[in-house]
Amino acid sequence: MIELYHCVSARSFRPLWALEEMGAPYQLRVLPFPPRALQRSYLALNPLGTVPLLLDGGTRMTESSAICQYLVQRCDPGNRHGLAVRPDEPGFGAWLNWLHHGEATLTFPQTIVLRYDRFEPEERKLPQAADDYAKWFIARLRGIDAVLQQHAFLAADRFTVADISVGYALLLANELDLVPRFPPAVAAYWERLQQRDGFRRALAAQHDAAVAQGVSPWTSTRPPPVESA
Amino acid sequence: MIELYHCVSARSFRPLWALEEMGAPYQLRVLPFPPRALQRSYLALNPLGTVPLLLDGGTRMTESSAICQYLVQRCDPGNRHGLAVRPDEPGFGAWLNWLHHGEATLTFPQTIVLRYDRFEPEERKLPQAADDYAKWFIARLRGIDAVLQQHAFLAADRFTVADISVGYALLLANELDLVPRFPPAVAAYWERLQQRDGFRRALAAQHDAAVAQGVSPWTSTRPPPVESA
Repeated sequence: MIELYHCVSARSFRPLWALEEMGAPYQLRVLPFPPRALQRSYLALNPLGTVPLLLDGGTRMTESSAICQYLVQRCDPGNRHGLAVRPDEPGFGAWLNWLHHGEATLTFPQTIVLRYDRFEPEERKLPQAADDYAKWFIARLRGIDAVLQQHAFLAADRFTVADISVGYALLLANELDLVPRFPPAVAAYWERLQQRDGFRRALAAQHDAAVAQGVSPWTSTRPPPVESA
Repeated sequence: MIELYHCVSARSFRPLWALEEMGAPYQLRVLPFPPRALQRSYLALNPLGTVPLLLDGGTRMTESSAICQYLVQRCDPGNRHGLAVRPDEPGFGAWLNWLHHGEATLTFPQTIVLRYDRFEPEERKLPQAADDYAKWFIARLRGIDAVLQQHAFLAADRFTVADISVGYALLLANELDLVPRFPPAVAAYWERLQQRDGFRRALAAQHDAAVAQGVSPWTSTRPPPVESA
């Protein structure tokens, strides 16, 4: 059985969403945020203290977008759900590109904003860095905006885990109040993603597992609007 | 013919290294850094102004680690060079994980150090942020160090593009003078990577192409020690 260690609305939402899109069985372990401080026992499993952690037999993974690619291969090798793009499809390169882009280019800059605008104590806050990387993130959205002006999804004209990778970056931006600065095609795409059954099931799954496991079902910053809507 | 847009010792070194490991044909276009300021015409090809940009028929990619995965499929579908790990091999999950980790977890934090310690004008430098993310990077090296204490390479006990993804992060750390802070197994791994023929050919290829195309063959920060050795 696949085990996924998760914090509410953290990057581990990506593999959770992928599992729900496929209807695959899994066990969700919800940790308080940050686990490094609030659940020290987790460090025995993952010394970095980060989520996600995926355990599946002898496989151990910590990178959320990589886990999405692994899960579609592991849980749906025939690609019945179409969440992967195969090497012989024309969209293969684009699929890999946006799968990485969602994390490396669109999520990391937002963690700088989170850190220096919200998580650090007052004397260590850095408004310049927070502002620099909010702008940097918004500027980088032009890349996906150009695609989304022509296509409903990022690769192969269907919903894939590349959309989950980028979609999570937009969920995080929602929590950082950056949605009003989205270009129009990105804003419309974000609206569409939130309507998906798989997305809604993933939100419900993290809420229910958090409550059942005695962890707050809200994020450390504030209740995510996508949940309270 | 594959076209790769590159700046000396930038992330685009990853696909260059992968191409040289495979001996695949390509055209290397070297741009001065940063192209956004020094070669404005590049924005017509890539409005984000970033490298790498890979053009291959109808495929267009900008994420360096994703391009490595694409290239091994494109140039070596039979995996004769062993740079990919196949889904039916036990190391598949680890391979995907470290492929993403090299960029998302080990490279992005270093770009914060570069920006606030070197590239920004004096009045915008942020020593706290540069120091925070140098420490953050060094702390994250524990993840690969644990693997490298047991194995010569990160996945499947052979050199793969996951090692190229992480190896580039170590090359960048070299330029940031962070090598003395590497844990021992990571330091030994970085020494081994630099001895590879493919790595040396990639260094020679970027140097020769830069000179031939009238671009400085040195990085914007300083000549990389790995080249002058």
